Amino acid sequence: MNDEPNNLTPPALDPADLPVRTGSPYPAPFDALCAGRDKRALGNALGLTNFGVNLVTLRPGAASAQRHWHTDQDEFIYVVEGDIMLITDAGEQVLGKGMIAGFPAGAADGHHLVNRGAADATYLEIGDRTEGDEVAYPDIDLALRIDDGKRVFVSKDGTPL
Amino acid sequence: MNDEPNNLTPPALDPADLPVRTGSPYPAPFDALCAGRDKRALGNALGLTNFGVNLVTLRPGAASAQRHWHTDQDEFIYVVEGDIMLITDAGEQVLGKGMIAGFPAGAADGHHLVNRGAADATYLEIGDRTEGDEVAYPDIDLALRIDDGKRVFVSKDGTPL
Repeated sequence: MNDEPNNLTPPALDPADLPVRTGSPYPAPFDALCAGRDKRALGNALGLTNFGVNLVTLRPGAASAQRHWHTDQDEFIYVVEGDIMLITDAGEQVLGKGMIAGFPAGAADGHHLVNRGAADATYLEIGDRTEGDEVAYPDIDLALRIDDGKRVFVSKDGTPL
Repeated sequence: MNDEPNNLTPPALDPADLPVRTGSPYPAPFDALCAGRDKRALGNALGLTNFGVNLVTLRPGAASAQRHWHTDQDEFIYVVEGDIMLITDAGEQVLGKGMIAGFPAGAADGHHLVNRGAADATYLEIGDRTEGDEVAYPDIDLALRIDDGKRVFVSKDGTPL
């Protein structure tokens, strides 16, 4: 993205024109890891409902999420700028610009991205919105469950947080 | 993408390592417009099934597709490299690197991307796989319909092509 105005009109947009949401909805203390995460909701801004597309910038030290996996929703990421560490059960690997990763629904391999560098790093993330999806967090006492049709954070024994 | 080996292992990949599919499945003469279209199926390669993610390069003069819209599937595009002309009912606009466009399911506005430049242009395209999706092509005598659960190209009066 450069500084010249793009003057795009829907169905096209310049992501730089969209609002930024900083941080995560995790209950404390699990939110600290993502305090330096800036997210723009690209798909929502374009009226898409079947899947979400976000442009995410991780400041140095920030993570994409707590390490997690989804029961019913696929996830995909594409590195737009910078180097990002991908962490899964198999270990760590650095994804540079243009590299991709994907996490099929139901694959019980907790994953997240961490910016270990000194500069911002940016990626696109795509996830569908299949109903009934729950999220497991292998490293911490947290789970995302469906309760009365709503997604709620609970501890692993089901206690609301 | 650079020339150094990235040595990534699943769930990460370097798109440059994936096979390229050139051209389109349109029946002649409608396939000519997309003869210079090279596509890598990123999402499929990563085992994703709920949505597709392709990395598409348009050589000079090539188009993403015939101008079309989907009844049930959302579409999203992100420009990775180069300048690409987006054409819709409202006219034309140039999308540069980092710009986005989205086409919600059921929005009856035929769209496609054309590379009018002298260099290759590359974008990411994402579409979900909602069943029952049909495709309308406002400019030509072509439609994509569901017949016996299979997607088939027909002329607008339903004649198989």
